[in-house]
Amino acid sequence: MSPFKTTIPLSLSSQPLNSLKSDEAASGPKQGPTFQDGQRRVDYVLTYHVQKPQSVRRKTSRFADYRILRSLRRSLSTMRSGGTPPSKEDPEIAAHKHRLDYHEDDKRFRQTEFEDNLREVGLELEKDEGNKIPGIGFLKIHAPWNVLCREAEFMKLKMPTKKVYEVKQGSNVVERINLFIHKVTAPLHPKVEPNRPQNMLFYPLLSHQILYEEWASYSVFYKYQPIGLIRKYFGEKIGLYFAWLGVYTQMLIPAAIVGVIVFLYGCATVDNDIPSMEICDPRNNITMCPLCDRACSYWKLKTACGTARASHLFDNPATVFFSIFMALWATMFMEHWKRRQMRLNYIWDLTGFEEEEVSLSHEVKGFLLSFPLQIGVTFAVVFGVILYRISIRAALHMSSNPTARSNIRATVKGTAAVINLVIIIIMDEVYGAVARWLTLLEVPKTDKSFEERLIIKTFVLKFANAFSPIVYLAFFRGRMVGRPGDYVYVIGSYRMEECAHAGCLMELCIQLCITMLGKQLIQNNLFEIGIPKIKKLIRRRKSDMDSQQQEDYNMTLERHEKDHFLGPFVGLSPEYMEMIIQFGMVTLFVASFPLAPLFALLNNIIEIRLDAKKFVTEVRRPIAARAKDIGIWYNLLRGLSKVAVIVNAFVISFTSDFIPRLVYQYMYSPDGSMHGFVNHTLSYFNVSDFQPGTAPVQPMHLGYEVQICRYKDYRETLWSNTPYDLSKEFWAILACRLAFVIVFQNVVMLMSDFVDWLIPDIPKDISLQIHKEKILMVELFMKEEEGKKLLRDNHTNQSPFQPRSRPASIDDHITRIRSSIFIGKQHQTHHLSLSPPCEVHHNG
Amino acid sequence: MSPFKTTIPLSLSSQPLNSLKSDEAASGPKQGPTFQDGQRRVDYVLTYHVQKPQSVRRKTSRFADYRILRSLRRSLSTMRSGGTPPSKEDPEIAAHKHRLDYHEDDKRFRQTEFEDNLREVGLELEKDEGNKIPGIGFLKIHAPWNVLCREAEFMKLKMPTKKVYEVKQGSNVVERINLFIHKVTAPLHPKVEPNRPQNMLFYPLLSHQILYEEWASYSVFYKYQPIGLIRKYFGEKIGLYFAWLGVYTQMLIPAAIVGVIVFLYGCATVDNDIPSMEICDPRNNITMCPLCDRACSYWKLKTACGTARASHLFDNPATVFFSIFMALWATMFMEHWKRRQMRLNYIWDLTGFEEEEVSLSHEVKGFLLSFPLQIGVTFAVVFGVILYRISIRAALHMSSNPTARSNIRATVKGTAAVINLVIIIIMDEVYGAVARWLTLLEVPKTDKSFEERLIIKTFVLKFANAFSPIVYLAFFRGRMVGRPGDYVYVIGSYRMEECAHAGCLMELCIQLCITMLGKQLIQNNLFEIGIPKIKKLIRRRKSDMDSQQQEDYNMTLERHEKDHFLGPFVGLSPEYMEMIIQFGMVTLFVASFPLAPLFALLNNIIEIRLDAKKFVTEVRRPIAARAKDIGIWYNLLRGLSKVAVIVNAFVISFTSDFIPRLVYQYMYSPDGSMHGFVNHTLSYFNVSDFQPGTAPVQPMHLGYEVQICRYKDYRETLWSNTPYDLSKEFWAILACRLAFVIVFQNVVMLMSDFVDWLIPDIPKDISLQIHKEKILMVELFMKEEEGKKLLRDNHTNQSPFQPRSRPASIDDHITRIRSSIFIGKQHQTHHLSLSPPCEVHHNG
Repeated sequence: MSPFKTTIPLSLSSQPLNSLKSDEAASGPKQGPTFQDGQRRVDYVLTYHVQKPQSVRRKTSRFADYRILRSLRRSLSTMRSGGTPPSKEDPEIAAHKHRLDYHEDDKRFRQTEFEDNLREVGLELEKDEGNKIPGIGFLKIHAPWNVLCREAEFMKLKMPTKKVYEVKQGSNVVERINLFIHKVTAPLHPKVEPNRPQNMLFYPLLSHQILYEEWASYSVFYKYQPIGLIRKYFGEKIGLYFAWLGVYTQMLIPAAIVGVIVFLYGCATVDNDIPSMEICDPRNNITMCPLCDRACSYWKLKTACGTARASHLFDNPATVFFSIFMALWATMFMEHWKRRQMRLNYIWDLTGFEEEEVSLSHEVKGFLLSFPLQIGVTFAVVFGVILYRISIRAALHMSSNPTARSNIRATVKGTAAVINLVIIIIMDEVYGAVARWLTLLEVPKTDKSFEERLIIKTFVLKFANAFSPIVYLAFFRGRMVGRPGDYVYVIGSYRMEECAHAGCLMELCIQLCITMLGKQLIQNNLFEIGIPKIKKLIRRRKSDMDSQQQEDYNMTLERHEKDHFLGPFVGLSPEYMEMIIQFGMVTLFVASFPLAPLFALLNNIIEIRLDAKKFVTEVRRPIAARAKDIGIWYNLLRGLSKVAVIVNAFVISFTSDFIPRLVYQYMYSPDGSMHGFVNHTLSYFNVSDFQPGTAPVQPMHLGYEVQICRYKDYRETLWSNTPYDLSKEFWAILACRLAFVIVFQNVVMLMSDFVDWLIPDIPKDISLQIHKEKILMVELFMKEEEGKKLLRDNHTNQSPFQPRSRPASIDDHITRIRSSIFIGKQHQTHHLSLSPPCEVHHNG
Repeated sequence: MSPFKTTIPLSLSSQPLNSLKSDEAASGPKQGPTFQDGQRRVDYVLTYHVQKPQSVRRKTSRFADYRILRSLRRSLSTMRSGGTPPSKEDPEIAAHKHRLDYHEDDKRFRQTEFEDNLREVGLELEKDEGNKIPGIGFLKIHAPWNVLCREAEFMKLKMPTKKVYEVKQGSNVVERINLFIHKVTAPLHPKVEPNRPQNMLFYPLLSHQILYEEWASYSVFYKYQPIGLIRKYFGEKIGLYFAWLGVYTQMLIPAAIVGVIVFLYGCATVDNDIPSMEICDPRNNITMCPLCDRACSYWKLKTACGTARASHLFDNPATVFFSIFMALWATMFMEHWKRRQMRLNYIWDLTGFEEEEVSLSHEVKGFLLSFPLQIGVTFAVVFGVILYRISIRAALHMSSNPTARSNIRATVKGTAAVINLVIIIIMDEVYGAVARWLTLLEVPKTDKSFEERLIIKTFVLKFANAFSPIVYLAFFRGRMVGRPGDYVYVIGSYRMEECAHAGCLMELCIQLCITMLGKQLIQNNLFEIGIPKIKKLIRRRKSDMDSQQQEDYNMTLERHEKDHFLGPFVGLSPEYMEMIIQFGMVTLFVASFPLAPLFALLNNIIEIRLDAKKFVTEVRRPIAARAKDIGIWYNLLRGLSKVAVIVNAFVISFTSDFIPRLVYQYMYSPDGSMHGFVNHTLSYFNVSDFQPGTAPVQPMHLGYEVQICRYKDYRETLWSNTPYDLSKEFWAILACRLAFVIVFQNVVMLMSDFVDWLIPDIPKDISLQIHKEKILMVELFMKEEEGKKLLRDNHTNQSPFQPRSRPASIDDHITRIRSSIFIGKQHQTHHLSLSPPCEVHHNG
């Protein structure tokens, strides 16, 4: 709805009441700042750089005033009048700042024009240029009652109804269980609505205070969020974000519990795992081929014992179950959120509110320009990360002592993961800028379109950045290594990376673990807490005052002057983006890391309160924005949960040993057990077949001469017609792996669709409520018509068939008709409903 | 919305003006039937059996009258007043018939109660019991203008606006092309709206006449349908069905063209196909193993030459392209329909209309009861069909002369397909009844819920019935036959069916071809034309009159009395079901039968006119029903197009020879060509390995002694360690087939999603229009408020900031406010818009 962004002369950024601390609010509800007459309340504050007036030429768009009106409208949406006197209502203050970057005279003219436009729509203004902050002027805005009424009517704000409908859900067992659950979870609910008087919520100072105590505090981490209050104070858009975050965190609890159980199952069964027993058994004296050319030598399989046992923790049949569980979990989460959103829409009266549809594909021209670039950049990111990994690995391989290498393997992995993490975090910031550049190339026409495109681009780049090393580890590492005597070489003479004996799953786990923990720790602590604090410090430093002076100075400042020093609100995109990437980690590779939901849960419990603190105390209060849903983020989540199914299918069938084990057990095992599995997965290599110059320098490293070494692959035996060719077992297992992918993907998709279909999008009580209100409206309407007809019949007696109804007084009917006007929740008559009280107030 | 179905004492079935023939309407617009006063028009007719009045006990629901009101409301939705005098409007007549099956007195009481209820809501009644049809009474209903107004207001019927908005799409190239296309396609548009005066459409007799000429006629098969008129005459629900059928038929045109091209490509390249050349080459003297035990003997591969060449027509690389094309086509179709539906919703003013949501999962109890039954029945259907096929095949095999069998193979196939077809058609009717029984078991609470459940059940059963033989042919036939010397036997000693040499694709084609053509021919001609005619004939016979008497008698009858003899309208479900099954044929197995879209197209061109004829002349005019979309059918279509992707992936990779050919060419071929492919697909069998009693009785049939015969399979050679085991090639090709399925499915799904995302759901011009209307409403609203403010300011002068606006006369503002009332298309003020003219009319 904001096609005028570029034509608006003054960029408005919100600047609200956030510097309030608890001690200030303790003295009780204040009336808040007013104009100099002490009567009219300050509803909005615009700030600008003070300039000299000059002559003008250009004319600006007359739609400039729409923008401020729109934000007014948005903040109105958070207010409900409910019959209280208007003077005590809506003292919300959001301050706006002008940044003038054009020619001075032009700017001056535009500002005057802008102010005129504000006055024209009925707002009342008061300037405040002689204040304590030099060079900054404040323009205070008061929205009179009639403007509020007009806008409220215009945005179809609903009135609370006089008649309260009670929808009984029937006194069945479900109802009782719900009641019981509600009683049990009572301490989990924040102390907001029930304990305090309703009217008090009209004082934003107190709202702020309650939010500070009951929401933006780590001590209440176990409680539900006061979503209603958040929405009242910050608007629907931010309210929806926190509601979503709450639902997500809540849904992570069962996932984390099942994940821990799966992990514990792995721990409990590690001693019964026959393949790792066989690897650890010193009697199986298996000599393995060297892992690198020349420098490495032959090694004993039993040295991989620890890795094999550790791998079992994450690579056991329970993981398959957990993958399916998490795919369904993702669907359930989406459904649960849809229902929650629907419920919030109903409670927040958004059912009639329609958002402007902005179709992405409408602006194809710019898209065609930037799409190949986007693809190019994304591929560059992915290949850059892989190349970087191969080279860093190669460097590490070369530098370390060959004999000690196998011992420090884990350390190396950890180091690589940490380095990788740092690179990811740094590149994340770079890609944010790249995405912005790409979006600018497309020249989107509206704010919303710009935001959506930016989000998609940022998402693709950040996602590629975060996940390409993981995807590489899961699917490409150790796949194209070739075989002893015929290795694949890249970048000159470095061999492709191999995995440890028990698959790449273990390394994948470490990578995921470090990425999740590290990214969250660094991003939360450094970026979200540290950097804003540093910025604030720098801003204070610039003002050349010591702390005592600063404090004295602060005491003299008014609310909006203090808020001027807070950081700006930069939108919800970074918050959502962080969560979506985390959701990706939780769902995409859950098959390889069952603890991911637990990590995510712990992070989110902190994240909610951290974000809350930031919104309540660190940044200027954002302009309240209306929204019906979380927009593009829902689509991204949905896309991710679809991709998750196929990725998990591939992780299970290709990264883990699940399928080879099954195939061995049912096709090749002589006794139907797993005994002999390790031997079955190892092929034979004749050391005389080494290519010149690649044989180990220390062939006697193990103390004996090696003639035949083993390597992990399914290849023909030495004594077949075609030695070293891929064997029949290889193809059979490959076919089974692929068949598993097909079955897994389609079964899980079918189950997801079924769950989707089974859970209605609208909660039953809400649809009952809506239905009941509709019926009530029908009845009122019929009564109204009956009344009219009676009136007519009594006067004219035109109708040949007299109605059979009992004689009722006309007054009775008129009363009923009037009562129908005050039904608030219905969809059509609210247009009528607000005017009378507004008019009454204005005239009385 | 009709939970009272079971409590309504009189079952209402519609019975309208359909027996009108063209000669009757030629005399010009008539006023239609009226009450005996000659003034009040007959709007509805109810019929009932004439009974003697008796005493009563039971009281009926007071909601009974709602049902007739609702149908009144529905038929109102097809009328637009537009400012013409009300007495000339809405002479729609629908006749209803009472069927009384209860106790006489109770019935009598209920009827009186029902009539009282009708009067209570303001309808005017007139009885007509002394008419020419003995035992049938007619109750004529007149809906007075104030009742129509009330209902119109209640259903939020919109008024045409005085102000016409013209949305310019810009004079760009696209616009010109559209104009050009419109000019070129002008003869394709039916002669309805532009050539005749607008008012005329208010006479349903003429509407009927136009529909008869411009729609329900085979001579206009190439024209678009007059959807607007169809909707006016039959209501939105039937209008949407024909709109959908039109879009589907239209979309079939490109699919049919591409299909024919693919088929022609197959024809053109059949002589260059190396594998069939090799099969037909007499120099490749390959001896094949016998196709059945004892009775069959060895045979020469070159006898399969014809089948191999024919198979190439349907099994060539173009088919893969066509499968992808059709998957995207299905997505495009769905998108196209969504847009068309949106456009119709806008044109038909349904944007504000909300349908009652009935969630299927709300009534779980009955579902849990019938779901296992449903599964059971479906499986029984599938297995029944397969078993039946195996046994019929075995019987045919046994009965025919062994030597002649290979020659009559094609005949046998055709016969089997025809028998199969007949079984399908018979079982179709049976399963309809089974589905109804299953749905009754669930005891759904509402009409709509019942309908949806019935549709789903019928769909599942009919779908299983129609597709199980095809699925069997495509995926199971010839898969589990075993190998020479180790065949798989079922039902005693019958071998599993084998396919001809070139795969089962050819047989699949024949089956599809016969099913599609036959099913359509039989269902269209026999069921849709023949049976209704026979029924009508029988009804006439019963009335004991010869044709002259009949004609004379007919002349004396009034409109509603004639309509009484027409067949009842049984709903749209059978029509939709037929089309959905056809859509399944077109999309699911398109990989094996590229001509399917062509067949479907030809059928649908007939189908549209056939349905039109039926609706216009054969059945009683249905009660107009409002609908925003095609409901459950959309979900079924969507589900089918999803399933189509995976089915086509499997058909290409498993039923056709596409993957083995590719694998041979790139992995095994010595020179990279297809030479030697046939030999590669044939394994060796030593005739001494025949199990006792299974060797051919006539081993010298070919004229020489056979020691080694060939069979189509990938198995180890005779001289390997494990002869007859599945070979490495088998597993490699299997892996490639499965990989193809994964790649195909995911690529096509991704492309579909991309197409889905690329095409906006709301057509650009419609969203522009809506946007423009919104802006217009904003402006009107602002002006109105400005006017109010001016009024206030002039009186009280309260506001300290005077608005900067020019002095405008108050009258000017009031005029503008009034003009805002007549904006018809806006969403909120239509509630206000209808009342003034209604009131004016009634009083004036």
